[in-house]
Amino acid sequence: MISVPRAAIRRCFSAHAASYPSRTHNCGALRAEHADVPVVLAGWLLPQRKVSNALSFFSLRDAVGATQLVANRNSERSARTLDALAAVPTESVVVVEGSVRLRPQNARRSSDPTGDVEVLIHDFTLLNPACHALMPFLPSDPSSIPNEELRSRFRHLDFRRSGSLLSSNLRKRSEVAHVVRNYLNEEDFVEVETPLLLKSTPEGAREFLVPTRVGQTSVESSTPNVPRDSTTPPPLFYTLPQSPQQPKQLLVASGAVDRYYQLARCFRDEDGRKDRQPEFTQIDLEMAFVDWGEKQQPTTGVAPSDDKWRIGGREVRRITEELIRRVWRKAEHVELPSSFPVMTYYEAMSKFGSDKPDTRFGLHIQNLADHVPQSYRENLSNRDELLEYILVRAGSPGEDFLAASNRISLDPNEGVDRFVMRDGDATLSWGRETEALRDIGSQYGLSGLDVNGLNQHLGLRVGDTLFIARRHMFSGGGSSALGRVRSRIAEAASELGTYTPSPTPHFLWVTEFPLFTPASADPENQRAILDSGDDKRILWCSTHHPFTAPMAEDVGALQQGEFENVRGQHYDLVLNGVEVGGGSVRVHDADMQEYIFEKVLKLSNNEKASFDHLLHALRCGAPPHGGIALGFDRLVAILCGTTSIRDVIAFPKTGGGLDPLFKSPSTIPDAILAQYGIRAR
Amino acid sequence: MISVPRAAIRRCFSAHAASYPSRTHNCGALRAEHADVPVVLAGWLLPQRKVSNALSFFSLRDAVGATQLVANRNSERSARTLDALAAVPTESVVVVEGSVRLRPQNARRSSDPTGDVEVLIHDFTLLNPACHALMPFLPSDPSSIPNEELRSRFRHLDFRRSGSLLSSNLRKRSEVAHVVRNYLNEEDFVEVETPLLLKSTPEGAREFLVPTRVGQTSVESSTPNVPRDSTTPPPLFYTLPQSPQQPKQLLVASGAVDRYYQLARCFRDEDGRKDRQPEFTQIDLEMAFVDWGEKQQPTTGVAPSDDKWRIGGREVRRITEELIRRVWRKAEHVELPSSFPVMTYYEAMSKFGSDKPDTRFGLHIQNLADHVPQSYRENLSNRDELLEYILVRAGSPGEDFLAASNRISLDPNEGVDRFVMRDGDATLSWGRETEALRDIGSQYGLSGLDVNGLNQHLGLRVGDTLFIARRHMFSGGGSSALGRVRSRIAEAASELGTYTPSPTPHFLWVTEFPLFTPASADPENQRAILDSGDDKRILWCSTHHPFTAPMAEDVGALQQGEFENVRGQHYDLVLNGVEVGGGSVRVHDADMQEYIFEKVLKLSNNEKASFDHLLHALRCGAPPHGGIALGFDRLVAILCGTTSIRDVIAFPKTGGGLDPLFKSPSTIPDAILAQYGIRAR
Repeated sequence: MISVPRAAIRRCFSAHAASYPSRTHNCGALRAEHADVPVVLAGWLLPQRKVSNALSFFSLRDAVGATQLVANRNSERSARTLDALAAVPTESVVVVEGSVRLRPQNARRSSDPTGDVEVLIHDFTLLNPACHALMPFLPSDPSSIPNEELRSRFRHLDFRRSGSLLSSNLRKRSEVAHVVRNYLNEEDFVEVETPLLLKSTPEGAREFLVPTRVGQTSVESSTPNVPRDSTTPPPLFYTLPQSPQQPKQLLVASGAVDRYYQLARCFRDEDGRKDRQPEFTQIDLEMAFVDWGEKQQPTTGVAPSDDKWRIGGREVRRITEELIRRVWRKAEHVELPSSFPVMTYYEAMSKFGSDKPDTRFGLHIQNLADHVPQSYRENLSNRDELLEYILVRAGSPGEDFLAASNRISLDPNEGVDRFVMRDGDATLSWGRETEALRDIGSQYGLSGLDVNGLNQHLGLRVGDTLFIARRHMFSGGGSSALGRVRSRIAEAASELGTYTPSPTPHFLWVTEFPLFTPASADPENQRAILDSGDDKRILWCSTHHPFTAPMAEDVGALQQGEFENVRGQHYDLVLNGVEVGGGSVRVHDADMQEYIFEKVLKLSNNEKASFDHLLHALRCGAPPHGGIALGFDRLVAILCGTTSIRDVIAFPKTGGGLDPLFKSPSTIPDAILAQYGIRAR
Repeated sequence: MISVPRAAIRRCFSAHAASYPSRTHNCGALRAEHADVPVVLAGWLLPQRKVSNALSFFSLRDAVGATQLVANRNSERSARTLDALAAVPTESVVVVEGSVRLRPQNARRSSDPTGDVEVLIHDFTLLNPACHALMPFLPSDPSSIPNEELRSRFRHLDFRRSGSLLSSNLRKRSEVAHVVRNYLNEEDFVEVETPLLLKSTPEGAREFLVPTRVGQTSVESSTPNVPRDSTTPPPLFYTLPQSPQQPKQLLVASGAVDRYYQLARCFRDEDGRKDRQPEFTQIDLEMAFVDWGEKQQPTTGVAPSDDKWRIGGREVRRITEELIRRVWRKAEHVELPSSFPVMTYYEAMSKFGSDKPDTRFGLHIQNLADHVPQSYRENLSNRDELLEYILVRAGSPGEDFLAASNRISLDPNEGVDRFVMRDGDATLSWGRETEALRDIGSQYGLSGLDVNGLNQHLGLRVGDTLFIARRHMFSGGGSSALGRVRSRIAEAASELGTYTPSPTPHFLWVTEFPLFTPASADPENQRAILDSGDDKRILWCSTHHPFTAPMAEDVGALQQGEFENVRGQHYDLVLNGVEVGGGSVRVHDADMQEYIFEKVLKLSNNEKASFDHLLHALRCGAPPHGGIALGFDRLVAILCGTTSIRDVIAFPKTGGGLDPLFKSPSTIPDAILAQYGIRAR
């Protein structure tokens, strides 16, 4: 026991610094069964509700819940306690000694976990007073809704704000992580931590550099401006990984582990695109000996053999689906189907105009080519083009897109035209809605179009709306113009209230992506910057990453240089039109990997050198392997019912990469930079 | 099913790229009960053992285990299979179809999990050949033991090496992490990921900087050498945290979570001290409302009330002890005591000359002052010095340090003298062993020493060895000269075989550290560098970090400026003389925290500003809180029986911070640096 006079300590510092009663329960724990139990609770004091001069209620809140406190004037002592507690500023931290009692029947609240009881206060200790003068908003005041900027600068107050779900989101995130880890552990996955201080690679998007003092001769802090001479060692840098792709492949390729996983922190230095964070978390898996499942193990959940999964990596699919099923079971109490549907990239682009289609609603894209004159069809085909349409007509309640389809605005540049079917003299006629379309005949060169026949074939009715667009067959990218129109119609309908998305989550695998994309079509491709020298012949980049294996059927095309025809053993997991993860079977053949580096991606020797260790591992006997990475932040955001991953990250950065709470990034004194052998430009 | 002609594919690339039979078991799974079961195994082919021309054994190994394969010439087909398999280079990856059979009784190996069975090969597919010409060593060759440098450059081969424990160490690490997480989850801890891109602070050791493109106007890659003008924005940096100390305190102080944990990656840019890594992992905890435990909850394991834990944070102690107990139970099958002993820093330094004493053996340090003349005693006391000794005499078998104590060498500079008791004329005399000691009287100013009396008092016997040294009472730091001699004696005795350390782990809490250390005594203190301006009055730095709360008894001393007398509510967990973790009760009083920043640590306003958010959180009502961080790498290394944490990290760096596998750190082209607004000095 500590025998310091408490008063002496309180005199000079503001908070209670000595011993105090241990709490017996958290503020969310008390139930009717605790009636008459003496308890000690600790938490934040919420505003007083004064029933009369002789009776007041308070709430005491902590990270778990809130409990109602009662103070009265039944005795001299209790009156003193009431007065003292009423004088404590709200949001202060107190520890309360009291006893549990049942509330009167009519005051019970079954919606509140502690709603059956209240705690009669006997005594309390003020552990730490809150200074209202310094608080930009009071977390316990439900009427004050601070703006986003204030909330992010004072995240520590936002956590405690009434109506904020941040704290419960963090708890859910932790629970989901636990479900994930338990399942993977059960499946014999080994959790391995891979380095965050890694090596720069010529793979795609922007990396963070980490200068190190390694190799720097020590520099006097007082001489930051003295230039070094030519013998000065150059500064050296690690790189923060965009994913643990290479380390995890090395682990599995080497035989160190058969099944690897990690909830891995990843980094990307890019201008704050909407809802991206410079650091984010992946559920990262890799498995040795993934295969096509010729001989399914009797114990595994075998997917129907007629589904469209025609690539390797079936084990990855099985593990991922079960992992997702367990998460939904635990967090949402929803039982998902025993296997998720599979769609090829080709089908996704043709039918939905997107490589991450939202399959909760129809509005399918269809090919118009069958209904246009032969000459036009040939013309399209010569230019590798398709002519596609979406037909919108009145639907059923809760799934009617017609009003929305007439409400969305079309950008003349996106090349989509909208036609509304009108009642003509005898037959339906095409009504033009866009200024851009002067004449359907000339626009599409459809002068020989049999409008009547087409009307009849499509079963067009008055009021139907038709969207038409051309699409390049090998355009690459994630969506077509018509696909984007499809999404906008659904959004508009959802806002109008004519469409209510199904509450059942629609999971979907998209497979058989083109392995390579023309470099010009990939805005994220950095190769042009890295390759500042002479070789400007770069034409192709990897659609995902250079380690993805081609489909077995397309190995011949790869060898023959028909790179546009090579499909990868890549799979994306899509939920309600949002990509929640992606992975692939990897190249395990060193010769094939070198061929891809050299003949397809045209890496320079320097660039290739950054993959030397991987090539070496493949040459020393590496098993077929594959894996997946699921976006953990995004997954948790969906489970928390929020559209922003910032709501499920404890201390997120703004879209611009700023941390308004810790005030990073910041400048660093020249003397410190000098220790790393660097200076401001 | 894939219908690609396999031969066509194999012709050009070296590995098997199409479908192959799915494995039914891993290579460590088969037991006697599987006899006659048809199986498919996949793994690395180990060397052939040819029994006769008609019978050969192979081993097939994967990350889990190894299985014996048998091939014979009983049929034309099996002969073909044998010849083909014998032609496959060892270390190649194959998938084998066969059937399990029991080995003959005399060939069974009970020490080997698969030692009862073997697999008769029916067919196999070569998935990926190993290229021996490129392999600096063959992992399957037990006779080749590559040197450390080769093993770290080719870590991916070292993982697979016979006799390497790396792979099983990784598995154990994963298991321990799982035990830790399960326990903390059970105790209602919320796992929260805190930012790795954080803000620079003036706290102690060396940080890694992360330059960002945020705020940089885009720079043409082709003009790296054009200097920017004065309107150029300065480069901005995040900092990688040395620990999540501030974010975790903010989380708990704000009420976001009541109990936080994280297996947190931490970073420190320092010259490779022995067995330190620039990135490492902590089991990081923080709890709200930690207290002295006045009213113990009936369900908790109450520590004996007479133990020496006289500070707050009892909940942290209880959680940590139970966490460690579960880890040892699971990983070592050892039941640890229900509570770990507690020792104050004062006692640890006095009795063991170390703040992380190895309590598995005696050799206690004792105070000689009681046995020296009064005048000398006063002289010592005036200089705040102690005169201490270790007496070594013949011990029992397995715990005899006498021979070792005469074998260790003493550095004349460390100020320790060794005396061996010899048989004199009538009484024992001091025999000098060190050249440095000319005369015991003059050396210690002990001219009036009653040698006989001292001999008698200490019970000195012929052959006993005495080590004597002076020590400054407030020297700070982790060990005294005599403490280091004590450790060296134990090491030497262990090598000699006269001392065998107890196999029982000796856990120990060390508490009540001095809260502040003279800045000059702390070699890690960076303040002198950061504070390049005028204010050179800095005298004190935090022994651990500036957020540690003083002991309640010492708050008065803190206020009165007697900083050397203030003990902190800090606790270190020590195992067998190794620090495995440390933590504290934090300051939750904003006034006290500001007082420490300003009056004790003399932080500049700029330096103090980096703690603004924490001070603000404390002023908005923060509960008493405390936590601990356990060194996860070190803990796992101990459990794996290795002295190097590199053996339990998948891809470690060398002592010098280099990664010989990924070849980091490396130089970065000027054009890339320019994007961050930096350049080489």
